[in-house]
Amino acid sequence: MALTQKLLDVSAGRVPAELVFKNANVINVFTREIRTADVAVQDGRIAGVGSYHGRTERDCTGLYLCPGFIDAHVHIESSLASPFEFARAVTASGTTTVIADPHEIVNVGGAQAMQYMLDAAQDLPLNVYLMLPSSVPATPFETNGADFTAQQLAPFLRDPRVLGLGEVMCFPDVVAARGDIMEKLALTQQADKHIDGHAPGLSGQALEAYAAAGVHTEHECTTFDEAAEKLRAGFAVLVREGSAAKNLSAIVNGLLESRLPSDRFLFCTDDKHLDDIARCGHIRWNVRQAVSLGMDAVTAICMASWNAAREYGLSDLGAVAAGYRADLVLLEDLRECAVQAVYKDGVPVETLFEGRSAAPVPDALLHSVHLADITERDLALAVSGKTHVIEMVPYQITTRHCIEEVPAENGFFKPDSVYTKLCVAERHGKNGNLAVCPLKGYGITNGAIATSVAHDSHNVIAAGDNDADLVLAMRRIREIGGGYVLVSAGRVLGEVPLRIGGLMSTEPWEEISQKASDVLSKAKEMGIPYPVDPFTSLSFLALPVIPELRLTDRGLFDVNTFSPVKD
Amino acid sequence: MALTQKLLDVSAGRVPAELVFKNANVINVFTREIRTADVAVQDGRIAGVGSYHGRTERDCTGLYLCPGFIDAHVHIESSLASPFEFARAVTASGTTTVIADPHEIVNVGGAQAMQYMLDAAQDLPLNVYLMLPSSVPATPFETNGADFTAQQLAPFLRDPRVLGLGEVMCFPDVVAARGDIMEKLALTQQADKHIDGHAPGLSGQALEAYAAAGVHTEHECTTFDEAAEKLRAGFAVLVREGSAAKNLSAIVNGLLESRLPSDRFLFCTDDKHLDDIARCGHIRWNVRQAVSLGMDAVTAICMASWNAAREYGLSDLGAVAAGYRADLVLLEDLRECAVQAVYKDGVPVETLFEGRSAAPVPDALLHSVHLADITERDLALAVSGKTHVIEMVPYQITTRHCIEEVPAENGFFKPDSVYTKLCVAERHGKNGNLAVCPLKGYGITNGAIATSVAHDSHNVIAAGDNDADLVLAMRRIREIGGGYVLVSAGRVLGEVPLRIGGLMSTEPWEEISQKASDVLSKAKEMGIPYPVDPFTSLSFLALPVIPELRLTDRGLFDVNTFSPVKD
Repeated sequence: MALTQKLLDVSAGRVPAELVFKNANVINVFTREIRTADVAVQDGRIAGVGSYHGRTERDCTGLYLCPGFIDAHVHIESSLASPFEFARAVTASGTTTVIADPHEIVNVGGAQAMQYMLDAAQDLPLNVYLMLPSSVPATPFETNGADFTAQQLAPFLRDPRVLGLGEVMCFPDVVAARGDIMEKLALTQQADKHIDGHAPGLSGQALEAYAAAGVHTEHECTTFDEAAEKLRAGFAVLVREGSAAKNLSAIVNGLLESRLPSDRFLFCTDDKHLDDIARCGHIRWNVRQAVSLGMDAVTAICMASWNAAREYGLSDLGAVAAGYRADLVLLEDLRECAVQAVYKDGVPVETLFEGRSAAPVPDALLHSVHLADITERDLALAVSGKTHVIEMVPYQITTRHCIEEVPAENGFFKPDSVYTKLCVAERHGKNGNLAVCPLKGYGITNGAIATSVAHDSHNVIAAGDNDADLVLAMRRIREIGGGYVLVSAGRVLGEVPLRIGGLMSTEPWEEISQKASDVLSKAKEMGIPYPVDPFTSLSFLALPVIPELRLTDRGLFDVNTFSPVKD
Repeated sequence: MALTQKLLDVSAGRVPAELVFKNANVINVFTREIRTADVAVQDGRIAGVGSYHGRTERDCTGLYLCPGFIDAHVHIESSLASPFEFARAVTASGTTTVIADPHEIVNVGGAQAMQYMLDAAQDLPLNVYLMLPSSVPATPFETNGADFTAQQLAPFLRDPRVLGLGEVMCFPDVVAARGDIMEKLALTQQADKHIDGHAPGLSGQALEAYAAAGVHTEHECTTFDEAAEKLRAGFAVLVREGSAAKNLSAIVNGLLESRLPSDRFLFCTDDKHLDDIARCGHIRWNVRQAVSLGMDAVTAICMASWNAAREYGLSDLGAVAAGYRADLVLLEDLRECAVQAVYKDGVPVETLFEGRSAAPVPDALLHSVHLADITERDLALAVSGKTHVIEMVPYQITTRHCIEEVPAENGFFKPDSVYTKLCVAERHGKNGNLAVCPLKGYGITNGAIATSVAHDSHNVIAAGDNDADLVLAMRRIREIGGGYVLVSAGRVLGEVPLRIGGLMSTEPWEEISQKASDVLSKAKEMGIPYPVDPFTSLSFLALPVIPELRLTDRGLFDVNTFSPVKD
């Protein structure tokens, strides 16, 4: 948006504005005051705050006007929606900017997937900035779709919508100053761009080394003490409240008690599902929760806007002030943070989606599930005596590593209502790897669930109590090009097609949400206990960076010793 | 400075550091705490804050360690020292970074002078960032040395040491959305760089228009109300305390009373003379003054460091934290802000100047005083009845426009101890313009002072009570290639040669300061009253943007009507 003469004419009061919010309680992020004023909008920007007239005027008496919300760290793929549909979903509750790390899709499609995300995010009625996934593949102990090396990443650093390097998960490598990550860090520093952190529990000198490497944000704090130490060491703290991890109350309560400055605390969701977005809103929910814990609403709104814009150098975002983009949220109140209307570039955001459609998806991403033809015989797991079992932990994505006897028939593991069969099948067309193990705590009976969403390599993972349904579920995943599939007694009960890289749907978000909800409730009826999310819990069972025991396409992986399990 | 393996080895405690500040009271700009810790330095960067050992250890028990100070807006030329000597002078009291606007020298030498400043500032033991002078020439009512157009300015925007567009003084043009400045603003916005403001007293809708144009800082606030309005409108407020303008107490007192957030308040000097720098220090003085008014020392130090680094996106400056440049100040106490030692990139700063010398100066800048041959006859000023007189205002650079009778002989103005003769002679070799008028309040007797420092066009300005000394003074300015010259009864009493563009000296700052002090005290003995600074007051008399009446090479200029005086 270029500087226009018209904008200054409106600012200076020489001509009426395109649109004026009259008599609003305006949140001022610079002074942290609320002052009643008119806000004039012209050519997508805020022309002025004061007393203005416009060709269109919206009476805002009694309402609060604040900057559009910013999600400082999100994986769009976790919503299962395409960037277009994600934008439609999150803007409704006031999020007008996201800083997204397309870590999932890049694990499937590499640089091509990175480019797709840039293309799909272009000119959306949502400002989408991207971070370059720094850890693809996440570990060398699994088969993913494509690498994303320093060399492949470098050209993207020149894109103005790329803010830097995404969450650097391999923090032990950084602290030890070893491996590919060093080159990626150096390239990003040379480009004077940002480096996001991901280092749960990192502390002391190891944390200092991580900071010395140029990492300046962290979204993995789960306690306030951790947040305070990281703040002291120079990290901006992204307070995360998503569908999976919920760290807001611990950090906000601690912040309020400590009286430390809040200006380097930001909000993020990391991963948030469509049903949660629909029910609670997106970043608006973080604001509301913080206020409910006793945080001053203006402080919470700053965390949701200006603090993030400032941290990431987004110079015309995050404030209701002349010259800033007219990304604005009208709130009915500050206690509930009830959103009445959302404007993007000065236009009601919902109208900006009308008559528009999502960007085309490259063919390779629409056909990314290259699964070998799996038969029941392939799933046979010979056991004798005690064997390794993954045990789920209620409400957590961590697991326990058990060694116990499992039910067997003719020397082969035979699942039941306690011991489920878990399979991971390589699906990138590289080697046809297939691994099987017993799983405890998932509880599915008379059927199977399979999905192509399996962090971070996104092979096909399936869990079931009989081989026939397991095979059917995985075959169906291949047929529909990825997604979630629920099967029982030889019949597909429901499915959520995720054709974009096997991770995101091409459908409207309402339909995705509806289908997911149907499958989830049907899955719940098949014996999966309440604390286990049938989709999410399954999708994390292949992630070899979260303790204790995981199954990748190469077999069982002991995260505590960070090495494959040897029998 | 690239990311090095050694740095992380030190951070993580695997090897001892190059240098450790042991047991210092460390100012943490992120939490605004003071905590006792060791600070390890390696390869010019801070490796870590905590418990460290080093090959060299400096015991800092009882001392305070804070980030090097940042002057957010300064004209190096006003010190009369070259960038090298300026660096030597200001680093001694803890300033390790300046954001300089070379507005004066660019008025003399255009793009070549801009390049000289970049070259002269390169690799100094002071981080010198530059802003591009936005208003050269300052007005069309005077003759300056060279223009600096949008087209000439554009290539410099690509230089990483150029942070953006310098103080936009032509704020009426911005508000009116007219003139060359619009193109300069647009170019700077396209480059995603910063735009500094300069709009004394601007308020209301005009201020909104100025903000809408993308201007985000202001250093001209003289009252806290003005500062608060500008802060609300989105401006960072640069609290100025220099040799000329002193706005610190008004703004800091107001800030303390208001309890508004301080995070967008920064410090600057704008113009500060060498004797003041030697006596009080540089930005250190702003900190000390703020503390003396009751400001918390950590807040004042943040204003002098982190706030400025953050505002201008200097991502590795302004904090004592791992990964930041080891630009550090050791303070003996917080009340007096007494500087014990200054480190630049981890090295005692004074040692970094040893064996080094200033960058070469382009020949054209060393020979910039192209003054016509002026004779006594040229200075004759015919008068009859009442005439226009510039009256000086004690302690101010504003003047009064008087119309009164002046002493005359044979129909020509004849100066005395009340009415001085003021001359401005074009010196850029363009047209040989010469203008003369009576001046009241300067009071020089039996002599004349001349200088090539005459804001903003830097023609030669001279004031005296007899034509012979006026001519001699101006001729001597030409002979020495610019500077300040004091003449009495046909004899040069003293001079300060300023060979670089007629504005800066090639000599060590101590010598410049000594010479200036000699000439000033001699000038004072010649009748110039106490409230008038013989040099500074004279140098501002040609500046046609400060009320009420000025003399340029084209004649008298009425600033109130913004037009030349017509008889």
